[in-house]
Amino acid sequence: MMDFEKILGNVREKAPLVHNITNYVTVNDCANILLACGGSPIMADEAEEAEDITSICGGLNINIGTLNRNTIPSMFLAGKKANELGHIVLLDPVGAGASRLRTQTAEQLIREVRFSVIRGNISEIRALAQGTAGTRGVDASEADQVNPENLDSVIAFARAFARRTGAVIAITGATDLITDGERVCLIRNGHPMMSRITGTGCMLSAMTTAFAVANPDNVFEAVCTSVIAMGLCGEIAHERLGEQDGNSTYRNDLIDAVFRLTATQLERGAKYEMR
Amino acid sequence: MMDFEKILGNVREKAPLVHNITNYVTVNDCANILLACGGSPIMADEAEEAEDITSICGGLNINIGTLNRNTIPSMFLAGKKANELGHIVLLDPVGAGASRLRTQTAEQLIREVRFSVIRGNISEIRALAQGTAGTRGVDASEADQVNPENLDSVIAFARAFARRTGAVIAITGATDLITDGERVCLIRNGHPMMSRITGTGCMLSAMTTAFAVANPDNVFEAVCTSVIAMGLCGEIAHERLGEQDGNSTYRNDLIDAVFRLTATQLERGAKYEMR
Amino acid sequence: MMDFEKILGNVREKAPLVHNITNYVTVNDCANILLACGGSPIMADEAEEAEDITSICGGLNINIGTLNRNTIPSMFLAGKKANELGHIVLLDPVGAGASRLRTQTAEQLIREVRFSVIRGNISEIRALAQGTAGTRGVDASEADQVNPENLDSVIAFARAFARRTGAVIAITGATDLITDGERVCLIRNGHPMMSRITGTGCMLSAMTTAFAVANPDNVFEAVCTSVIAMGLCGEIAHERLGEQDGNSTYRNDLIDAVFRLTATQLERGAKYEMR
Repeated sequence: MMDFEKILGNVREKAPLVHNITNYVTVNDCANILLACGGSPIMADEAEEAEDITSICGGLNINIGTLNRNTIPSMFLAGKKANELGHIVLLDPVGAGASRLRTQTAEQLIREVRFSVIRGNISEIRALAQGTAGTRGVDASEADQVNPENLDSVIAFARAFARRTGAVIAITGATDLITDGERVCLIRNGHPMMSRITGTGCMLSAMTTAFAVANPDNVFEAVCTSVIAMGLCGEIAHERLGEQDGNSTYRNDLIDAVFRLTATQLERGAKYEMR
Repeated sequence: MMDFEKILGNVREKAPLVHNITNYVTVNDCANILLACGGSPIMADEAEEAEDITSICGGLNINIGTLNRNTIPSMFLAGKKANELGHIVLLDPVGAGASRLRTQTAEQLIREVRFSVIRGNISEIRALAQGTAGTRGVDASEADQVNPENLDSVIAFARAFARRTGAVIAITGATDLITDGERVCLIRNGHPMMSRITGTGCMLSAMTTAFAVANPDNVFEAVCTSVIAMGLCGEIAHERLGEQDGNSTYRNDLIDAVFRLTATQLERGAKYEMR
Repeated sequence: MMDFEKILGNVREKAPLVHNITNYVTVNDCANILLACGGSPIMADEAEEAEDITSICGGLNINIGTLNRNTIPSMFLAGKKANELGHIVLLDPVGAGASRLRTQTAEQLIREVRFSVIRGNISEIRALAQGTAGTRGVDASEADQVNPENLDSVIAFARAFARRTGAVIAITGATDLITDGERVCLIRNGHPMMSRITGTGCMLSAMTTAFAVANPDNVFEAVCTSVIAMGLCGEIAHERLGEQDGNSTYRNDLIDAVFRLTATQLERGAKYEMR
């Protein structure tokens, strides 16, 4: 049984400051969800200040969506400095598999930076764990979901990837799968509407960094809790939708639900099982 | 009579993946409106991956707002690759006429890339079609609208521009004018409130790319339908506004209206005439 | 007594076009709040067009959040051109004190560009006025607020900074302090919820630029009015919050409140005193 009260309470109490090197598509949503969950965001991607900024933060969230030649070096500088300082570092390999640049950048980051958490959809994680490329843009291939048929093989490659990298691996989708190389948590919270807004994954990565920073002795459970929280908030937001509401309202409701989230909601709404 | 059911149905069914090289001001709204209409967005503007990304997409939306020395080469690389692959390519010449860089970049793009659609306000299109610069920032000059007095001359230069470029030309504003060089469609949907939010034009360009990608044999009607849809959703969003609501709520309602849009709404609400 | 009706009326009537060189985190909110208050935004940060764009605008808003090696030169080019043209120029030194790059860039900007207004939180302004660095990321240190104990010393350094730079200095936080080197205005509008969304400060800077551009003979009162307006709208937005609403809805309500703001609301709601 996860101690949601303690994990969420730590985020709210410690208000972890998270350095984000992230894409410009969903950056505003990432900042607002960090504030919603109780954390504090700072965005900075210039190489000249990447180390300075990471040094005043508690953790680092590296997201390779809209990466470019100027921000890639910043990811390495900040990542290595964060390693030096013992900070939590999360990688969101957005679109790995979709272009050589993204795949190679993610692979090189994994070689040169020790990540505490790697979170992506199954196509992205598969591309990095197994070297297969089947990503359709930045969304997982439709055919590529965790399902009863492939569950054992997904668990196997996720565990192996966690052991190789030393990171907690979070594969998110309709069913989420989190592993630290031994323990495996399957999560079934969430709602299909979450795939109709941009940034669900990016927001989850930003929030997960804050959860891990605030719970450094319990990163695996912090990651699980953050993934459960996002899925549950996706459900809560869906319940609020009126008949004229669409994805823009849904985005707002999702962030609002994170803002209002309580440990009691988590305890009642969590749908997870350990494997 | 346009076949709205077929055109909109194709967007929803085919879920076209659109590569956007676009400005960082409205990029999140562009991604969400693509998802709202039934498409799928990917944003990528680094030259090293521009061709890779465009290759996995169905169409390309080039928007020159906040262009910079790094993203301009990506526009050419992606544009030429998209041409090679026979993809739909749309140009949104944001602020053409407002700076030499924007005017010249748009002109060079038009020379080197074959565009399927060029969409802008009348000041931007006039600057490119006639070489006159009267743009007030990124909005059309107030004095520069399609109106009964200038209608014939606007039709004339728009048709000539369409013939010269081979693109469907969409001049949008209070009255919208679409032409493929022969047919001309005048559209009177929309609401003045649309000019009180940022990104109406950018969102329309992104959505129009998806409509054209999903209806490759009928690009002119796809463009007209997208422009009608945006205007109609602007009207629907205005009807929802409460007395305390302002432009931020309006932006959300507009995207929501696109999300909920039906062919029946289009059939009942479209205000257009062919010339 | 400030003439809110005249100051706000000028913004709405003149619709000042503001050139923003700003960060990509909150840029969309900045554009929408400029439109909400009655102004008109243009964002452009490429050196090749910075002077062209500033020349067609009425004022310039320089915000150093997510600054980078490409946009820094644009700040200087646009700032100097705006000085040449006698335009209003505002500096928002986001995160000054948090990295050497930000502190040094802000300092150099202040040396080479004449600013009409400098707006930041107390940590940022203190870093620039006194050379002390105690910024926690992009938010003011918790211990660093204008309060009854430090009020006299804050007034002293703010006045000295205003005299040295020739700018109206706006230190914003729970209590806001505005000075032109002689007059001091203390403002107590606002709500703690404003610190739970990203971009409150950035939006205020963008809006303040528009207020100053529209009231060039009365910049001090224009700045005070803009700061009062933002605080008051923060209060109005808070009153609208339902029990499921969080920070995302709050952001929308805040911008909406600016859109609906009247001189009568300002007259009734303003909480300020001159020192």
